[in-house]
Amino acid sequence: MTDTHPAIRVSEIFGPTIQGEGVLIGLPTVFVRTGGCDYRCSWCDSLHAVDRQFRHEWEMMSSDAVWQNVVALSGGRPLMVSLSGGNPAIQPLGALIKRGHDQGYRFALETQGSVVREWFAELDVLVVSPKPPSSEMRTDWATIEACFQAAQDKPQIVLKLVIFDETDYSFAKEAAARFPRLPVYLQPGNHTPPHPGNEHAPVDVDGIMKRMEWLVDSVTRDRWFEARVLPQLHVMLWGNKRGV
Amino acid sequence: MTDTHPAIRVSEIFGPTIQGEGVLIGLPTVFVRTGGCDYRCSWCDSLHAVDRQFRHEWEMMSSDAVWQNVVALSGGRPLMVSLSGGNPAIQPLGALIKRGHDQGYRFALETQGSVVREWFAELDVLVVSPKPPSSEMRTDWATIEACFQAAQDKPQIVLKLVIFDETDYSFAKEAAARFPRLPVYLQPGNHTPPHPGNEHAPVDVDGIMKRMEWLVDSVTRDRWFEARVLPQLHVMLWGNKRGV
Repeated sequence: MTDTHPAIRVSEIFGPTIQGEGVLIGLPTVFVRTGGCDYRCSWCDSLHAVDRQFRHEWEMMSSDAVWQNVVALSGGRPLMVSLSGGNPAIQPLGALIKRGHDQGYRFALETQGSVVREWFAELDVLVVSPKPPSSEMRTDWATIEACFQAAQDKPQIVLKLVIFDETDYSFAKEAAARFPRLPVYLQPGNHTPPHPGNEHAPVDVDGIMKRMEWLVDSVTRDRWFEARVLPQLHVMLWGNKRGV
Repeated sequence: MTDTHPAIRVSEIFGPTIQGEGVLIGLPTVFVRTGGCDYRCSWCDSLHAVDRQFRHEWEMMSSDAVWQNVVALSGGRPLMVSLSGGNPAIQPLGALIKRGHDQGYRFALETQGSVVREWFAELDVLVVSPKPPSSEMRTDWATIEACFQAAQDKPQIVLKLVIFDETDYSFAKEAAARFPRLPVYLQPGNHTPPHPGNEHAPVDVDGIMKRMEWLVDSVTRDRWFEARVLPQLHVMLWGNKRGV
């Protein structure tokens, strides 16, 4: 069968395992992690899918080939496919989503909201994660707004904010105030992100949990009762190990 | 003001803190924990609200008095109120729910599904948690079915299953098969539950997380892709401490 769709740059495909964070936390998922990113967050926890020095690990794959991998990992039984990165929005994922939908699979995409795609409207879940000041990136709110416009209210849309400090917390409040209709998920950042090539590098789970407690204290003190506060379960379970 | 409604037997009212488990995980919540239970699970993690030897800690309170406590804790700002126990279904909670709804509050109830109440239809979220074989309790499926009938599809209804071993896991599958339309949440049991009166008794978080990993392996191996697997966040954060 000929696949005329443009190729997808893939860093890794793995699973099923549970989604470790955000609105789908706990749900069995196959992850398609694409390679490449238009951002370079100071605390990036997926450098192996972002930094071009790891591009030798990335592979250009047809939608067909990616799809066959997802089917093999899930035994052909429909489940939630999580499209992550890097920034998966810079890859041509529309054909993959269409193909999976035909077989009853669902698709969630997580992006910082810096690149708009028409196929956002085909997603089941769109997680937009504006990067806070600690990332050293700049958020373009107009582009994030355009992402929501592209989605046309078709997928479930949520905001996810990674938070390291008070400044990030204020940023999260600003983001929530800009989009009052959207559910908000707050997540304590991992200040001990993986070193690519050394997945056994230590993770300071105690430190992350202290940040989690502080976040819980902050939202309850401020009576921000609509926000959900969730840690990264996979980090608590498996540290920085890849492929789980 | 006269309150003609029957009194509620209360073990504790605390919060706001985040909901630690299940469908509302991470959401800021005030907990109203009622006293008394028609079950006596072998591994009960809330004995202080179940065992009658602690009834001197319980208080008969009017709906008004409970409501004033919730308002004070939440600063009058609407949030999710979690009705737990013990078995909160044996208490007269309809008037409290009505009063809170008038002010924009929402109510989630968690019960084993052994007692049916008309006011289940007034809830926003009904979590039914049939107790697995390891609890040494017997589940009456007809009564659980009657709970769902009473709810009349008005609240969001979910199943939550606590799991300690393979037998419990099979029970969870049976429960899910009986109610195929309901979302299912699986939760590794805490084999080191609190000793009432000693909230500093050690918790084997590593052991709970091992059970969590085994559960993740089980659902992915069996391709049970609809189930969500979530640990008790509050135990990971605060051990067996009460009031958080």
